[in-house]
Amino acid sequence: MFRITVRDHIMVAHSFRGEVFGPAQRLHGATFVVDAVFSRPELDADNIVVDIGLATQELGAVLADLNYRNLDETAEFAGINTSTEFLAKVIADRLAARVHAGALGAAARGLTGIAVTLHESHVASAGYERSL
Amino acid sequence: MFRITVRDHIMVAHSFRGEVFGPAQRLHGATFVVDAVFSRPELDADNIVVDIGLATQELGAVLADLNYRNLDETAEFAGINTSTEFLAKVIADRLAARVHAGALGAAARGLTGIAVTLHESHVASAGYERSL
Amino acid sequence: MFRITVRDHIMVAHSFRGEVFGPAQRLHGATFVVDAVFSRPELDADNIVVDIGLATQELGAVLADLNYRNLDETAEFAGINTSTEFLAKVIADRLAARVHAGALGAAARGLTGIAVTLHESHVASAGYERSL
Amino acid sequence: MFRITVRDHIMVAHSFRGEVFGPAQRLHGATFVVDAVFSRPELDADNIVVDIGLATQELGAVLADLNYRNLDETAEFAGINTSTEFLAKVIADRLAARVHAGALGAAARGLTGIAVTLHESHVASAGYERSL
Amino acid sequence: MFRITVRDHIMVAHSFRGEVFGPAQRLHGATFVVDAVFSRPELDADNIVVDIGLATQELGAVLADLNYRNLDETAEFAGINTSTEFLAKVIADRLAARVHAGALGAAARGLTGIAVTLHESHVASAGYERSL
Amino acid sequence: MFRITVRDHIMVAHSFRGEVFGPAQRLHGATFVVDAVFSRPELDADNIVVDIGLATQELGAVLADLNYRNLDETAEFAGINTSTEFLAKVIADRLAARVHAGALGAAARGLTGIAVTLHESHVASAGYERSL
Repeated sequence: MFRITVRDHIMVAHSFRGEVFGPAQRLHGATFVVDAVFSRPELDADNIVVDIGLATQELGAVLADLNYRNLDETAEFAGINTSTEFLAKVIADRLAARVHAGALGAAARGLTGIAVTLHESHVASAGYERSL
Repeated sequence: MFRITVRDHIMVAHSFRGEVFGPAQRLHGATFVVDAVFSRPELDADNIVVDIGLATQELGAVLADLNYRNLDETAEFAGINTSTEFLAKVIADRLAARVHAGALGAAARGLTGIAVTLHESHVASAGYERSL
Repeated sequence: MFRITVRDHIMVAHSFRGEVFGPAQRLHGATFVVDAVFSRPELDADNIVVDIGLATQELGAVLADLNYRNLDETAEFAGINTSTEFLAKVIADRLAARVHAGALGAAARGLTGIAVTLHESHVASAGYERSL
Repeated sequence: MFRITVRDHIMVAHSFRGEVFGPAQRLHGATFVVDAVFSRPELDADNIVVDIGLATQELGAVLADLNYRNLDETAEFAGINTSTEFLAKVIADRLAARVHAGALGAAARGLTGIAVTLHESHVASAGYERSL
Repeated sequence: MFRITVRDHIMVAHSFRGEVFGPAQRLHGATFVVDAVFSRPELDADNIVVDIGLATQELGAVLADLNYRNLDETAEFAGINTSTEFLAKVIADRLAARVHAGALGAAARGLTGIAVTLHESHVASAGYERSL
Repeated sequence: MFRITVRDHIMVAHSFRGEVFGPAQRLHGATFVVDAVFSRPELDADNIVVDIGLATQELGAVLADLNYRNLDETAEFAGINTSTEFLAKVIADRLAARVHAGALGAAARGLTGIAVTLHESHVASAGYERSL
């Protein structure tokens, strides 16, 4: 299996509901350094997994919708705990939709998997992986 | 599949038996920066894999039993080469036992996998992964 | 010159005032991974710069006052752009006050400098250094 | 499953053919920081995955054939886009051949998988994994 | 003293002249992960060292002139060993010129120092620092 | 000012004397990832700070004398707390002696400073810098 990984980041505010979150129930924030991994069993005609330039561009586009925002006031997340692992799935699913829509190029239809990891500090990260 | 990773470290002394280990047969030491990964297919009712605070606390508790020790003089490891990969399994198994005992919360019973990686330098690491 | 560095982190929300900040004028957030460096020309009687345990504990105490907060609603920062570089100075000055108050031990009075760096992402950081 | 990872690097020149590569069609270069992961379900008689010294030595030997070269003028890669993911496979396959040839020791025949990741910058990497 | 650091990277080919360089006398390449540090004793009216967005943009502009090139065929470097430390000075001087030309904003004229570090692998880097 | 940095590591056992060290009074160990920085105001005739190959080789030679040892039983450190900051000075001084002895080449006599940092974990490091 081949894979490529591209990295970008977002800086967001949010809060959590539930005693388990302790002080994180207060409005706070996070930098999420985001790694998006694209995988496939065979390379395409250009000998690559996917155009790394397009992958970086599309990851940037997905993140731009989330960046510099208070997720508590983002309509689509109303009533939802925007945990790191949940956000990893949001980003992975949006990248998957872009792959299916052809935004990463025709050859990207050969991709079989996406994994997204969000590093929230030097000591914690969360991720989600799915097939395409 | 969702996952979260928490990081901590231990500083131990030990030696190895076997020609393959060369100078590492002498008593020496290591800092092991430990990444513990918890995974599950669906998030719990709080929209998380596991309470990251509890995960960090329990990893710390497991590591406290090993930290600042000469593993050569630890009874449970008598006659055993405490290689990095072996220690990764020790830590993973002890974390698994804590999950089963409910130390990471009732919802943590939905966890399906644990992976532990020990970084012993900037150029080497070892790990072990298992199901729950 | 000798120095030691300890690391911890905070997760905060804030916003900026001023066109220069662009989208960061919106309420957003950041993880700041904080490195605190303590320096002195000669080691103390224990052959160290400062007790690394105490240094870590006091850095943690200083950060606890800032962690999991919306800095826009913190009285002491009213009307102030809580830029990364500004926060580095706040933390450095508070650490300096603790050194002077003896919180890092009597021998820590031999410290001559403090530098604080806040890493806000994998591509940006800011810092402040001062004498003691 | 157990695994160990060793790291080394190469510094090469190359160019790509295909519009998708944009400015990378020009002769340029890259440092590839290479992580080689060896895995197996059970440890060997020395309680390890493989001799980390031998693994490091053999990775170094495989990389020496590629290091400080212009890959465009390397006969074996004539007419081939030496993408990061392609090079990951080249290195993984050569390591696999060395395992099969006994270069990593007799016990290394118990290895069941190899994964190679090439980090080409702080924001991009590519990899290939295969069974043994 | 305050400072901010921004990071970007370039991927170039080059070769060296001189026996001291050994195999690096052959045409090879490197990824240089570039950290540019801007410093000043007091913050500006916006409470910052310099607009981090502009700093990132100008670093990108300086690097664009070098990126995806064979430095051996770049007229300005004819007959020059483009060592990592030499390139750090080239980049620092070009950033300094942009500061003086006002490209980083009027307030950036309060900057007093620039330091540039090029990381060429996980085990080597080089840098240059100068006043403004 | 120009500088280059090379990295290597050692794995040692030791213990500390003094209540300030708490559990580190027990025999334990550490991996020290060592960064050695060499600086000078002007480049040499080859356009470099120092031959990075020789610098790496000499750092390796200095570290070989310490590696895979129990520092408590090393005669030269008898009765001394081998703190991270103390070891940084030992390594810096030994590198300085090698520079003065010509081991880093004749041109290395133009070096004016050495700084050594030992990273003992992902959250702590210590260093020493001196002139030449």
